[in-house]
Amino acid sequence: MLSLDQLKEITRQSDSKIVLLVIDGLGGLPRPDTGKTELETAHTPNFAELASMGTCGLTDPVSPGITPGSAPGHLALFGYDPIKFTVGRGILEAMGIDFDLKKGDVAARGNFCTLNDKGLVTDRRAGRISTEENAKLCQKLSKIVLDGAELYVVPVKEHRFLLVFRGNGLSGDASDSDPQQVGVVPLSVVASSTKGKKTAKLANEFATKAKAILADSHPANMVLLRGFSQHPNLPTMNEIFKLNPAAIAAYPMYRGLAKLVGMKVLNTGSTLEEEFNTLAQHYAEHDFFFIHVKKTDSTGEDGNFDAKVRALEEIDKLLPEITNLNPDVLIVTGDHSTPAMLKGHSWHPLPIIIYSKWCRTDHVREFGETACTSGALGRFPAVEVMPLAMANALKLTKFGA
Amino acid sequence: MLSLDQLKEITRQSDSKIVLLVIDGLGGLPRPDTGKTELETAHTPNFAELASMGTCGLTDPVSPGITPGSAPGHLALFGYDPIKFTVGRGILEAMGIDFDLKKGDVAARGNFCTLNDKGLVTDRRAGRISTEENAKLCQKLSKIVLDGAELYVVPVKEHRFLLVFRGNGLSGDASDSDPQQVGVVPLSVVASSTKGKKTAKLANEFATKAKAILADSHPANMVLLRGFSQHPNLPTMNEIFKLNPAAIAAYPMYRGLAKLVGMKVLNTGSTLEEEFNTLAQHYAEHDFFFIHVKKTDSTGEDGNFDAKVRALEEIDKLLPEITNLNPDVLIVTGDHSTPAMLKGHSWHPLPIIIYSKWCRTDHVREFGETACTSGALGRFPAVEVMPLAMANALKLTKFGA
Repeated sequence: MLSLDQLKEITRQSDSKIVLLVIDGLGGLPRPDTGKTELETAHTPNFAELASMGTCGLTDPVSPGITPGSAPGHLALFGYDPIKFTVGRGILEAMGIDFDLKKGDVAARGNFCTLNDKGLVTDRRAGRISTEENAKLCQKLSKIVLDGAELYVVPVKEHRFLLVFRGNGLSGDASDSDPQQVGVVPLSVVASSTKGKKTAKLANEFATKAKAILADSHPANMVLLRGFSQHPNLPTMNEIFKLNPAAIAAYPMYRGLAKLVGMKVLNTGSTLEEEFNTLAQHYAEHDFFFIHVKKTDSTGEDGNFDAKVRALEEIDKLLPEITNLNPDVLIVTGDHSTPAMLKGHSWHPLPIIIYSKWCRTDHVREFGETACTSGALGRFPAVEVMPLAMANALKLTKFGA
Repeated sequence: MLSLDQLKEITRQSDSKIVLLVIDGLGGLPRPDTGKTELETAHTPNFAELASMGTCGLTDPVSPGITPGSAPGHLALFGYDPIKFTVGRGILEAMGIDFDLKKGDVAARGNFCTLNDKGLVTDRRAGRISTEENAKLCQKLSKIVLDGAELYVVPVKEHRFLLVFRGNGLSGDASDSDPQQVGVVPLSVVASSTKGKKTAKLANEFATKAKAILADSHPANMVLLRGFSQHPNLPTMNEIFKLNPAAIAAYPMYRGLAKLVGMKVLNTGSTLEEEFNTLAQHYAEHDFFFIHVKKTDSTGEDGNFDAKVRALEEIDKLLPEITNLNPDVLIVTGDHSTPAMLKGHSWHPLPIIIYSKWCRTDHVREFGETACTSGALGRFPAVEVMPLAMANALKLTKFGA
């Protein structure tokens, strides 16, 4: 496919509007007794109508067989090759709690852990201490003074916290101190390039001082750090696609991912009604809308097949709130599959509907994993969704003479 | 997919014959009242028979969503990745009028334009002057003498002309003087690499002298130049595929594209009968034939749905002229879609039939965009058509031990 630089050459601004509805964890697996997935079980007449009018297919967020995290799943849908553009764990952790990252910051994911009297890790999660206990410990660690950088230690949940260094000359080129196993000592952080030397030094200094401060806080008597990373500085969707894009998402991580690609994040309530109302209210102000629906993923992660079915039916019921706005292009898909049968993200491709006046229809008359298999879009990488959206919105000029 | 160098290693010469019928602008969009595309509306029993015996699918000339120009559309079908191998606008313009380019020539597309008394462009097409007027002005400009290169100024049509520099040390690395908007002055041509310096200097000198010569020729009182480019020096189809390929095309641009990849261009009349007769006459002399049919594209560009339907029916009616020759491999597809509904090239994938004794059939029994969706070839990049053609002609050996 074209590089972003090549794409940039053929994109053009126009008044047409694109709505991308991302149903998190949309794809599923059939329940053995019925042979039907969550989506195939759900009663979804509005999706069926959209599938009938639109063109359907299956997308692979990364490539066949690869289970994506939330970042690659979304970056692909926004048009960024998720193999080329990566978001570090530290940065994702910062986005997940709406931490206001500055340019040059290095973020890492921290765990409180338990060391025995020999200094060996006996529990990588410190018995999952309470979030309240976590907050108290983070306050203590925040008082650490480092030579050459400011420090932020922010509680996340249970044993997890966010560590941010702010200063000059930092880099994400530093290894983890988390050994990812028990019975060993925490690792020293090592620079993987000369750029990473300062960060590694700061990280080791932080760990040493944290160990001293936490000495009496058993089971949380040490920290493990991983995923040192910096803001990936992606080209914005405005630069590439000449769009004025907006995001409607209730969860911080998805708002953060949208910010990474330069979307304006709209204030919204967390229910589906509120999200769809936000779309209607701001519909005149933007030409691209990303709407994120979370419940399908959470219910899938819980292994609650029926709750995921109900979540899908709820979206279907409210779909006319979007279609009544008559967007020039409406895309319904997901960032990855979360089959209730697997209680987690999976590698299965995602059903997709692309609807526009110019989309060329196919024989697909319902929205489901099996039905979409025979759609005209075939099976394709999710990173090609944006070029298709732009084409259907008549926002792409010819490639080549 | 394999690189051309890797492909070259496994191609072999043999007596089998491949015929590639390219129906320009083949793909369409359904007319709202019938829900059928041009191809689906046309009565095409011979295509249907071929689809029944062959294997079908949909091809993307470049990648999903991308609308190709004629050059990328054809290069892909000839086996050349159209993202990697590009043909500049100047070269394409030269090919369109059968200009005999030499190695090292730099070609550009020229427009006569109108400047006002402040030197600002007021009409980028000089009121579309007549081709006769254009020819007179080109004759005047041909007398310009440049330091270090010969000059050719050749009329094309209305306000368009071809500019060619011939000499040593030239390169296409030079920017456009065409500002692509009115109300501004023509741009200076700037070298985009050190290689492009001489070309930029020549271009600016030409523009200055042209302005003086055209001072009294309002509305055509200046020139705008764009698409400086050189012959892309592609490896030939003979080098890669060990074929002795021939082209049958009535329009200069397609003959030019065929020459670019080393095909022998056969003399032919411009009607379908004449093109198909040319095939029969020369059938013994070559093992690969590219036949280009233009009318489907022109009628699509005109937005004339019914005329495109008739053009397709005409091809279908004469198809036995090809099948009666019993080619070992017969491929029917297009270089891009030109839906009458859009009056121009579009991004929609192309139906394709690949017929051979070894092709493995599928359930497709008619030739149409929707029918081909369920073909055994699925949806795939057009650059993979040639490897499939070669394989079906038993002209490819095993890859790897």
